[in-house]
Amino acid sequence: MAAAAAPPMIKVVAICGSLRKASTNRGLIRSAIQLCNDGSIGGMQIEYVDISPLPFLNTDLERDGTFPPPVEAFRRKVRGADSFLFASPEYNYSLTGPLKNAIDWASRAPNVWADKPAAIVSSGGGFGGGRSQYHLRQVGVYLDLHFINKPELFVKEFEPPQKFDSEGNLIDPETTDRLRNVLLSLQAFTYRLQSKS
Amino acid sequence: MAAAAAPPMIKVVAICGSLRKASTNRGLIRSAIQLCNDGSIGGMQIEYVDISPLPFLNTDLERDGTFPPPVEAFRRKVRGADSFLFASPEYNYSLTGPLKNAIDWASRAPNVWADKPAAIVSSGGGFGGGRSQYHLRQVGVYLDLHFINKPELFVKEFEPPQKFDSEGNLIDPETTDRLRNVLLSLQAFTYRLQSKS
Amino acid sequence: MAAAAAPPMIKVVAICGSLRKASTNRGLIRSAIQLCNDGSIGGMQIEYVDISPLPFLNTDLERDGTFPPPVEAFRRKVRGADSFLFASPEYNYSLTGPLKNAIDWASRAPNVWADKPAAIVSSGGGFGGGRSQYHLRQVGVYLDLHFINKPELFVKEFEPPQKFDSEGNLIDPETTDRLRNVLLSLQAFTYRLQSKS
Amino acid sequence: MAAAAAPPMIKVVAICGSLRKASTNRGLIRSAIQLCNDGSIGGMQIEYVDISPLPFLNTDLERDGTFPPPVEAFRRKVRGADSFLFASPEYNYSLTGPLKNAIDWASRAPNVWADKPAAIVSSGGGFGGGRSQYHLRQVGVYLDLHFINKPELFVKEFEPPQKFDSEGNLIDPETTDRLRNVLLSLQAFTYRLQSKS
Repeated sequence: MAAAAAPPMIKVVAICGSLRKASTNRGLIRSAIQLCNDGSIGGMQIEYVDISPLPFLNTDLERDGTFPPPVEAFRRKVRGADSFLFASPEYNYSLTGPLKNAIDWASRAPNVWADKPAAIVSSGGGFGGGRSQYHLRQVGVYLDLHFINKPELFVKEFEPPQKFDSEGNLIDPETTDRLRNVLLSLQAFTYRLQSKS
Repeated sequence: MAAAAAPPMIKVVAICGSLRKASTNRGLIRSAIQLCNDGSIGGMQIEYVDISPLPFLNTDLERDGTFPPPVEAFRRKVRGADSFLFASPEYNYSLTGPLKNAIDWASRAPNVWADKPAAIVSSGGGFGGGRSQYHLRQVGVYLDLHFINKPELFVKEFEPPQKFDSEGNLIDPETTDRLRNVLLSLQAFTYRLQSKS
Repeated sequence: MAAAAAPPMIKVVAICGSLRKASTNRGLIRSAIQLCNDGSIGGMQIEYVDISPLPFLNTDLERDGTFPPPVEAFRRKVRGADSFLFASPEYNYSLTGPLKNAIDWASRAPNVWADKPAAIVSSGGGFGGGRSQYHLRQVGVYLDLHFINKPELFVKEFEPPQKFDSEGNLIDPETTDRLRNVLLSLQAFTYRLQSKS
Repeated sequence: MAAAAAPPMIKVVAICGSLRKASTNRGLIRSAIQLCNDGSIGGMQIEYVDISPLPFLNTDLERDGTFPPPVEAFRRKVRGADSFLFASPEYNYSLTGPLKNAIDWASRAPNVWADKPAAIVSSGGGFGGGRSQYHLRQVGVYLDLHFINKPELFVKEFEPPQKFDSEGNLIDPETTDRLRNVLLSLQAFTYRLQSKS
């Protein structure tokens, strides 16, 4: 890989599978953005992209290769990213509907996820969202995403110490540190996969 | 179980994960309904329930234990069913967003899927929708659905002979016969699980 | 289903995916047997069947429809059971090799697992064996096993309070009670599925 | 990454989940080796490693950090590889016992699979081994394997044209070409991941 100069800034698009306001999964993304903004992590910039404006996927809505405006806007964001951060809550042992819907829109030809690195984090009861992460990894095979393997982050939000405040903001330092390690791993994997020459 | 009298009519709610008009998965449901209506299968009545009016799941939309009107209507249909038929296309190796969204709304407390039998059919390229079926089965563990194991139906829609016309109507007799066997198995499993006494 | 008389004794075969002596998964089976023997659960009898004498599955070992003697013995036990209890540790996010090997031998035609109820318990770090349980459930679709959905039991063996002694014996009353509930659910589901009319 | 000189030879270890002599999955590995030996693929060397001498995994067999001799030999082979080729038949909708057993032995600390690329091929009825591939991918998360996403190879061995002769040798040119593309993708991904700077 390259050289003495600072490595290029990595642009990460972050999306969240929960639409509710006080979502703790959304809170994980806010913390990730904060870690980049306050200098805890250098060389990485995370943009949260809201998936709630998307319509339900229905290919009848595609006309001559164009998509409805909110879909076009979403696909542009995905296309411009170097890598992805998914905050993926577990609903009934799998992905949420809104998240899967967003993923599927961006996979329509040309698939704008292709050949990029990604990481998953989740928060919840039970396995802390774990089952959704493995379904998302299987989805990623077809999308041609390259997920980091380690570290995995499953935040068990109902176990002490308190992880989030009532608005879904992450307030636990240990979890914040584990989140930071996920981001550093994603960054390192992104650099590694970009060294194609 | 009962006796000499005809067994009670089983009410099946059928839902489809694809919203497009000419969906072949939707076509499988039309054929299933036809098989019950034309007497090929007795004692079973299938109602197709459209999931497109549902909003994206967002628990902020719940007020004092009530749901938005389309959700209430959908939940009533699910609650009134004896068993379920899912036509579950595979999008990117998993369930579709609209299907998962509908499933999740009906799982909100009280979970109206609980303790009922279900069957899955699917149509598509590759494995004929197979990967989505196994994700749906995992979802069913939490929903407390009892899926039939056999027969499974994966319709490989791009392999000869032609399975569907251009409007998504099933026109292949062999596939129709396999669909009939799925319904008979669902019916038998429903009777078997209802014999609780 | 029957009537006033006591329901028939249910015969359960229990197998464990770990071969080591102090396995906590093996300990769960010992506790389950104890719960039946001491009268905590009536009408159920559990036999532990050791899978370590089986050779690796290799169909070249089958001769004229007969299997090697340890395989024949194992298949006889499985055939004679009303239902099954799997203690399934998670190795590298899936089933153990010895457990899968045993399962596969008993699935060779005629498949002696077919159409019987089953329950899974597991103990371990992380998700308490959870990932192995979902892989086993998928295996069960082809075997035609009917798994109970609830309750699920994932014993997180490294979290307080202490769950097992150094020989793998279950010593935690709360976990024992949850194990008892799994067995009662298996028993109820077995009766329910046997009522074929 | 380097430069004008020929890229270094990649050493691939190939293992097969079926132990029977005429296994078509074993045949896929023979063909892969042949493609490297006859010059169809340059810069890649594949060694088949037999997993049948391994005992069943039982950590009681480990003494002071050493493993039984066949396990030590197997682990040495895995440790020396740059990447892996798994021929993974589907038994009852998942991995085979012998394959899982071998994988688990090599994952014992220190995990000798870690941080290396891998590809999966399979042959069989139904989905051509597809369900086993997704379970293996989940296993790979914990092993820290980096699987190529594309192309996937599922050989439907009972569909025309004939794919294998009676000894399990691959005789179909189109499948051979698809196998070649899997190997080229594995090679490219291996180079890409090795460019750590």
